Amino acid sequence: MAESFGFRLLHRDGAARAGEIRTPHGTVRTPAFMPVGTQGALKGVHWHEVREAGADIVLGNTYHLMLRPGAERIAALGGLHRFINWPHPILTDSGGFQVMSLASLRKVDENGVAFRSHLDGAAVDLTPERAIEIQQLLGADIAMQLDECLKLPAQPDEIARATRLSLRWAERCKRAFEGAPAGRALFGIVQGGDDKGLRTESARALVEMGFDGYAIGGLAVGEPQHVMLTMIEAVMPHLPAERPHYLMGVGTPDDLLQAVARGIDMFDCVLPTRNGRHGLAFTRFGPINLKNARHAGDPRPLDAESRCPAARDYSRAYLHHLVKANETLGAMLLSIVNLFYYQDLMQGMRAAIAAGKFSDFESLTREGWQRGDIPPP
Amino acid sequence: MAESFGFRLLHRDGAARAGEIRTPHGTVRTPAFMPVGTQGALKGVHWHEVREAGADIVLGNTYHLMLRPGAERIAALGGLHRFINWPHPILTDSGGFQVMSLASLRKVDENGVAFRSHLDGAAVDLTPERAIEIQQLLGADIAMQLDECLKLPAQPDEIARATRLSLRWAERCKRAFEGAPAGRALFGIVQGGDDKGLRTESARALVEMGFDGYAIGGLAVGEPQHVMLTMIEAVMPHLPAERPHYLMGVGTPDDLLQAVARGIDMFDCVLPTRNGRHGLAFTRFGPINLKNARHAGDPRPLDAESRCPAARDYSRAYLHHLVKANETLGAMLLSIVNLFYYQDLMQGMRAAIAAGKFSDFESLTREGWQRGDIPPP
Repeated sequence: MAESFGFRLLHRDGAARAGEIRTPHGTVRTPAFMPVGTQGALKGVHWHEVREAGADIVLGNTYHLMLRPGAERIAALGGLHRFINWPHPILTDSGGFQVMSLASLRKVDENGVAFRSHLDGAAVDLTPERAIEIQQLLGADIAMQLDECLKLPAQPDEIARATRLSLRWAERCKRAFEGAPAGRALFGIVQGGDDKGLRTESARALVEMGFDGYAIGGLAVGEPQHVMLTMIEAVMPHLPAERPHYLMGVGTPDDLLQAVARGIDMFDCVLPTRNGRHGLAFTRFGPINLKNARHAGDPRPLDAESRCPAARDYSRAYLHHLVKANETLGAMLLSIVNLFYYQDLMQGMRAAIAAGKFSDFESLTREGWQRGDIPPP
Repeated sequence: MAESFGFRLLHRDGAARAGEIRTPHGTVRTPAFMPVGTQGALKGVHWHEVREAGADIVLGNTYHLMLRPGAERIAALGGLHRFINWPHPILTDSGGFQVMSLASLRKVDENGVAFRSHLDGAAVDLTPERAIEIQQLLGADIAMQLDECLKLPAQPDEIARATRLSLRWAERCKRAFEGAPAGRALFGIVQGGDDKGLRTESARALVEMGFDGYAIGGLAVGEPQHVMLTMIEAVMPHLPAERPHYLMGVGTPDDLLQAVARGIDMFDCVLPTRNGRHGLAFTRFGPINLKNARHAGDPRPLDAESRCPAARDYSRAYLHHLVKANETLGAMLLSIVNLFYYQDLMQGMRAAIAAGKFSDFESLTREGWQRGDIPPP
């Protein structure tokens, strides 16, 4: 029996919050980090490993899936959950972000975005209504409105135009979402670039319309971290406490700490797998670059006390060898290490918030990173 | 406590044999298929998955490991078993085959092979004595003599020269292996190209020297299957029944059936992972090419009755999508499917030999392949 969507706030510690999102496919503990399965798969990671790492929910990219294998095909195969064999919650983005970053010859107008597929050059239209239809065909537990996401820096009038267009698209998405199967949720996306006034305007207008949750989009697109944090601070007072707050496309472990401290409940990012593919491991001791020659003869595991088998069962020397030899297994093991690290960081934050000790947790975590890697024996 | 090397012949059915090889790291059920961990890793497959597939033993490539990370380095890190975290039996080849196929500027003389590394052009010498030393540093349960392996077709006098050189190297390897840690084994390699007389000469001379096991090398190097089978038939009468017989670098599922029927006990080949990376799955219904568009909308798994989770838990449509989208997960899943299929084929042969029904098993297996894939519903 499908549960209806809901958010329960369980603990607050300063601005930081811990809670639970109910979806038709299960519960998501927040603050939550969503690994990104771009084309219906995480790169180099099995689905059971994503679950073992501790992820409650993953993100699927509408842009990629609509082009290949196609939303109608996935629907005919029983929806995205069945297609990828992940019976747990899924959030899909609206495709807007990738249209802006990947498609060619794109033309944005009031109606939507017309673009050419980066795969075969086919002409495709993405309107707010079609973005919702696709996400319904995929069967997403949480769908996102279509928005126009600019790279920063951008001109003020460009930001204003895109922000207001995104608000009109939000209205159309909300209407298109009426009659969605019970329990599914639609989130609005706060835009406004690096302009506090526009961010406030966007947040207020979306809350006026009323969504199941609110995302902050258009950040981590080239601006410094302090700008991102300032924008979060500008937006948060205008978002209802009883709805989940989702910071899109973010980020580094430090970004996650900073954003949770400011009231964010959800994140997605490709960093754990992307950095894993590039030989970088996230650990309690900060990032460790396995390409570095200092690991070549080091018999120690990455972290003997980790919950992650890949961090315990292989020497740094072996991981270094795999990375240098360009063996897929190196990318696979480091991606798992990073997925575990991100989920453990979220679990640590959730527990700390529940115990009213978030700022202690933050300091201790940061101290670990700053102390750096334990020196070889 | 390290067990000493030994081979126990348990069942015979015609020329087919089932038995057990004892090594310091455990028992290998024969006929055995050894997955190949070229650079200390299988491509796209975790070590625990290799074990779950049913492999008792894997092969490591001396050529690759001596160049990177280096045999002395692996020894300092506790040996190859610990380095790759595979505590079960390992066989290493001698490096000869890859020197011939990968290295540049190689010069073969009585002493050994001088060549340049394909990685950085470094000048390297590989003599029979060094090949044994390297394999001892790696800690192989089963080491192989250095041989010169020609591509076929080759000139008769070239084959004769290489065969006799390989015999003189076999003697030197045997001497170099004296005093090896208890329980470790050294195999000789029968050469002789496609010449039955030279094959016989090579086998007899090696048996005269006395090895723990006998390999047939220099096959599956370009010759038709019937030539390979004729060479096996020429050699087998000269090999002692109480020693394991290993056909190197072979092969397709059909090759395995044919060779076991002729008395072969051990195989190694990269086909399961290489074909998996290319979108090809080995199944009871014969090979299935997941690139084929007919799978795009097929909700069925590859084989609902397989022991392999990857063959049961994902639709052909999803596997097709992953292969088309060039997602690593596609190669990973199909490589696992193929490793399971190869091990299941070996297990089927072992059980059939034990039951005295090898030829029934052979017919049924072949019928399954010839019937082809079950048609879509």
